[in-house]
Amino acid sequence: MALDSIETPFGKADLVLGGSGTFFSASASHFTPVQLVGVVGSDYPLEKLDALAQRGVDLAGVEHAEGASFRWRGRYRHDLNVAETLETHLGVFSHFSPKIPPQFLDAPFVFLANIDPRLQVDVLNQVQRPRFVACDTMNFWIESRRPELVQLLGKVDAITLNDGEARQLTEHANLVKAARWIMKQGPKIVIIKKGEHGAFMFMNDSIFFAPAYPLEDVFDPTGAGDSFAGGFMGYLAKTGDLSEANLRRAVVYGSAMGSFAVEKFSIDRILEIGPGEIAERVARIRQLVSFDQEPAE
Amino acid sequence: MALDSIETPFGKADLVLGGSGTFFSASASHFTPVQLVGVVGSDYPLEKLDALAQRGVDLAGVEHAEGASFRWRGRYRHDLNVAETLETHLGVFSHFSPKIPPQFLDAPFVFLANIDPRLQVDVLNQVQRPRFVACDTMNFWIESRRPELVQLLGKVDAITLNDGEARQLTEHANLVKAARWIMKQGPKIVIIKKGEHGAFMFMNDSIFFAPAYPLEDVFDPTGAGDSFAGGFMGYLAKTGDLSEANLRRAVVYGSAMGSFAVEKFSIDRILEIGPGEIAERVARIRQLVSFDQEPAE
Repeated sequence: MALDSIETPFGKADLVLGGSGTFFSASASHFTPVQLVGVVGSDYPLEKLDALAQRGVDLAGVEHAEGASFRWRGRYRHDLNVAETLETHLGVFSHFSPKIPPQFLDAPFVFLANIDPRLQVDVLNQVQRPRFVACDTMNFWIESRRPELVQLLGKVDAITLNDGEARQLTEHANLVKAARWIMKQGPKIVIIKKGEHGAFMFMNDSIFFAPAYPLEDVFDPTGAGDSFAGGFMGYLAKTGDLSEANLRRAVVYGSAMGSFAVEKFSIDRILEIGPGEIAERVARIRQLVSFDQEPAE
Repeated sequence: MALDSIETPFGKADLVLGGSGTFFSASASHFTPVQLVGVVGSDYPLEKLDALAQRGVDLAGVEHAEGASFRWRGRYRHDLNVAETLETHLGVFSHFSPKIPPQFLDAPFVFLANIDPRLQVDVLNQVQRPRFVACDTMNFWIESRRPELVQLLGKVDAITLNDGEARQLTEHANLVKAARWIMKQGPKIVIIKKGEHGAFMFMNDSIFFAPAYPLEDVFDPTGAGDSFAGGFMGYLAKTGDLSEANLRRAVVYGSAMGSFAVEKFSIDRILEIGPGEIAERVARIRQLVSFDQEPAE
C-alpha cells in the first residue's frame, strides 16, 4: 500500500492511493469479497480507504505502523509503457512482516502481491491450505532474492509477471521458453503481462493470449498489472472454476480491469465502474479478436 | 528485390533472396497467381527465382538492369524485434522506375511495396482501375517524402505499416489516434503491424487484432511484415470478398504467413509450406485467442 506521486504527459497527481495491494483489492472487489493485508504509516489518509471498505474489502489485515507510508514518485513520458522512478521511500514498509488475521487464514484464493519472496513464503506458511495461490514479483527481487523466489515458485499454482521480468528470471529471451522454464519450477499457470501488448497465459501445452483493449486515451499506466491480477483472481474466486475455459475468461476479465485502471489516476476509475461497464469491455475484447476461420456458407 | 546478408544469434546467411517484393510474392503465391514488378542487377542469381515461378509468380515485370542488385546487410541481436542495418547498397534500385507489363495492367488487387512514394503513385497511374490497392512505406520515406506519401494515401484503400512508422507519420503516440489520422487522409483500412506483438486492423469504427503466433524458435525476423502483406492481399485476391469478416480472416492469414517467414532465413520456409500447414497455423491462432464470454450452461 503506497502513496504515489505521478507525472504523465496529461497531468500530475500527488500522494494518491497506490501500491499492488490497493489496485488488486479495488479490482478484485468487483467480483468477490476481498481480505487485504498490508501496512500503512501514520501519514496515510485512512479515510480514503472507506471507498474500498464500502466495496467489500475487509481492511482488518491493514497494519497501522508508526512512521511514513511507502512512497513512490514516478514519471511517464511519451512512451507510457516505461515508468521512470524518481524516488522510492520504503518507510514503514522496510520492517513490514505480514500478519494474517485469524479470520483470513482459510481464504481459498490467495494472491501474494509483489514483495520480498521471503515474506511471500511466510504468508503461505500462515494460511491454511488455500485452493489456489498466485504470486507476482519484480526485477528487484529477481536480482536480490533469486533462490527464495525460485523456492516460492515451488509453492504456487500461478505466477503473474511482466515480459521483462520473465526474461530476467529465466534468462530466455523467448517467452515460450521462459514460460516453460518457470513451469518447471512449479507453477502450472504462467501469465506473462506485456502491458499495452496484452498478456499470455501458459498452461499445460496450451497458450492463451488476451490483447490489451486499445484505448484512445491512456492516462496513467500505474497499477494496470495489479488491476489485471485483481480481475483474474477475483473472477476465479467468484466462479470457483479452475478449468482452462474459465481461466481463459479470467485472463480476459483481468485485461478488462487493467484497461480501466489506466483511464484515470490511482484507483479512481476502478472505483467508478460497475458490472455493466466490465461486461461491455469484455465483450469488446471478444469482438476485437473475433474471426471465423472459414467464410459462412 | 534484394540480396540480403544477415546475422542473427542463430546463424548467418550471405546474399540470400530478400526484399519486399520477393517476400510478398512468395507469401501471396500460396493463395493466388502473382505478378511481380521489380528490378535485379547483373549479379542476381536468377536461377533462384525458379522456385517463385514454379509457385505461379509471373516474373515478366522483373527488370534485369546492368549493375549491382540492391543489397542489405543487417544484424539482429538478442532482441529480435530490432534490425540493425550494417550496410545498404542501392545499386540498380537507385534508378529504378517500375514499368508495368501490359498484361499486368488490369490486376484487380495491387500491392505497392515499400519504395519511394513518387514511384508508388507512378505505378498507380499506369494500372487500370484496380479493385483494391494497398501500400506499405518506411521511416525513410516518411522523413524525406512526406507530402508525396500523404498524396499517395488519398489513392489507396489500405495501408500496412509498423507501429513506429505509424507514430512517426502521424505524430500520435497512441495507435488508435494514429490510425484515425491516417484514415482521414484516405485509406478505409489501416493495418498497424507490431512485429512479435501482433497486428491491428482499423476499419470504420471497428478494430480487429490478430496476435503473432508465439513461436519457440524465431530464426530470422527479416521479411515478416512483407510476408504478412502477401498473406493478407493473397487471401483477399483469392476470395474476392472485401467484407469486414473476410478482411479479418485475411489479417489472420497474414499473421500466419509472417510467422512462417521468421522460421528460416530468406523465403526458405515460405517455399516449403503447403495449404495444410497454413490452415493449421490459422487454426492455432484462432485457438490462441478463443474464449467464451459466459460459462457454458
